[in-house]
Amino acid sequence: MPLLVVGSVAFDTVETPTETRENVLGGSAVFFSYAASYFSSVRLVGPVGEDWPEEHTRLLQQQGIDTTGLQVVPGGKTFRWRGKYLPNMNDRETLEVHLNVLSHYRPELPEPARRAKYVFLANGSPETQLQVLEQVPGARLVVADTMDLWIRETHDELLELLRRIDGLVLNDAEAKLLMDDENLVRAGQGVLELGPRFVIIKKGEHGAMFFSRHETYVLPAYPTPRVVDPTGAGDSFAGGMMGYLASEDKLDPATLKRAMAYGIVVASFTVEDFSLDRMRAIGRHDVDDRMAHYQQMLSF
Amino acid sequence: MPLLVVGSVAFDTVETPTETRENVLGGSAVFFSYAASYFSSVRLVGPVGEDWPEEHTRLLQQQGIDTTGLQVVPGGKTFRWRGKYLPNMNDRETLEVHLNVLSHYRPELPEPARRAKYVFLANGSPETQLQVLEQVPGARLVVADTMDLWIRETHDELLELLRRIDGLVLNDAEAKLLMDDENLVRAGQGVLELGPRFVIIKKGEHGAMFFSRHETYVLPAYPTPRVVDPTGAGDSFAGGMMGYLASEDKLDPATLKRAMAYGIVVASFTVEDFSLDRMRAIGRHDVDDRMAHYQQMLSF
Repeated sequence: MPLLVVGSVAFDTVETPTETRENVLGGSAVFFSYAASYFSSVRLVGPVGEDWPEEHTRLLQQQGIDTTGLQVVPGGKTFRWRGKYLPNMNDRETLEVHLNVLSHYRPELPEPARRAKYVFLANGSPETQLQVLEQVPGARLVVADTMDLWIRETHDELLELLRRIDGLVLNDAEAKLLMDDENLVRAGQGVLELGPRFVIIKKGEHGAMFFSRHETYVLPAYPTPRVVDPTGAGDSFAGGMMGYLASEDKLDPATLKRAMAYGIVVASFTVEDFSLDRMRAIGRHDVDDRMAHYQQMLSF
Repeated sequence: MPLLVVGSVAFDTVETPTETRENVLGGSAVFFSYAASYFSSVRLVGPVGEDWPEEHTRLLQQQGIDTTGLQVVPGGKTFRWRGKYLPNMNDRETLEVHLNVLSHYRPELPEPARRAKYVFLANGSPETQLQVLEQVPGARLVVADTMDLWIRETHDELLELLRRIDGLVLNDAEAKLLMDDENLVRAGQGVLELGPRFVIIKKGEHGAMFFSRHETYVLPAYPTPRVVDPTGAGDSFAGGMMGYLASEDKLDPATLKRAMAYGIVVASFTVEDFSLDRMRAIGRHDVDDRMAHYQQMLSF
């Protein structure tokens, strides 16, 4: 089924304890759509500037990603992010953010994108996310990401969003902040009360937790000895998960759990190199091989 | 098969963000043996002072724990620990340690304990742990715990110990310290090179990782919304694991993994109340019910 992601497209500069990469391809919608592309066709909607190289568009298109919604803003510059990872490779500092074309972005979906059945509202202001929501009235599943900035500064709009989406994905620190509760199990269950049918808390190297009215569970991250750059892991997780759901077109608990597991597996590849480099080097069969190993790892 | 634990017996004072408990029953050997007792008979060996109340001995005996090796040191006082948990309930500060009878403790095993087939060397100096090891020449499985203090201050003795035991259990910060590597997968695999046949890294609320020559895996913690006091969770994990292994008397990979899972499940009960209170309120069937749920949680 058609899958849509609306979010950021970025040039990332990433500093790790051993290496720095300047202006590499990144952004929530980019990681998401590449991760989803192993499973499903996907439409990417987001703004870029005139500094956007055509080769990046081709790279996405070669993976079967529909880039019709990649909107070049005249006179604009692409969103830029610079971050630095601490030695544990799990915590990071944001050193610079240049919103550029993102700052006044009002998403206008191309006609085919409006018919998407599966929609991911990647990290953006709740106001922007709500604008997208208005344009996909026939969606079967709408999942949103959020972040500390919106929890702190646009709390009411976020609550409005939560009442209108099916699923929320957020990280552990954000869940604690949103619910003012240090216990993640209680925090996740608390977010459910705010509206979504399910909530997923991402715990970075420690995996992800799932919450619905009927069940709470946690799945660990796939243990990889090679963590080069965790940037985009969360969006790759969401992409793998939503891509699988769109391909199955089912939302029963068993399918949701398999989707979570696929998201975790795809994210474990993303962290193994900078930008999309590791994902570009693999195919669906690599994902499935690792998935089989992951499943076996959790069987006893 | 006979299971032996040698370690500390303590009075703990625990401060949590909401409550403080003074001088409650604790200690590595106590948590371990209680957790193991759901699965197997267990002998506890460790020193206490003259301030040790007979009722604590009875409590352990009622659970079928053999306390013959509980040695009252004349004129001595029982080991005391005081700690404070941060709001996340995962990190803690040690506020006070009074080694008391532990400071000059030289374990002398009672005759039957020397015939133990399964032995857990709970946290203690490597020197003390090696003294125990000398007294159990016929053991089939010897697993040890360690901590940052010994990694820093008695490094050579610890390396000697590692060459002579079958398994090592340590927490994430300790594994990183021991191997000087922030990546837990590499750190765990590195510890294997130091001698043990398997290594388990405990990650607190994030579960535990297993390493052997043949496999690496991670199992998440059982998600409980009720984390009251994490003290003893690591020792309960080890107790549940070793108790199960002793009861099965098998060391194949599948049994080891089930043992890990049992350890995780028992530890999830321990954190739900202070001291042994939660473990005292449950029986093997509660452990098995939660184990079934845990197993189902990880199936997809």
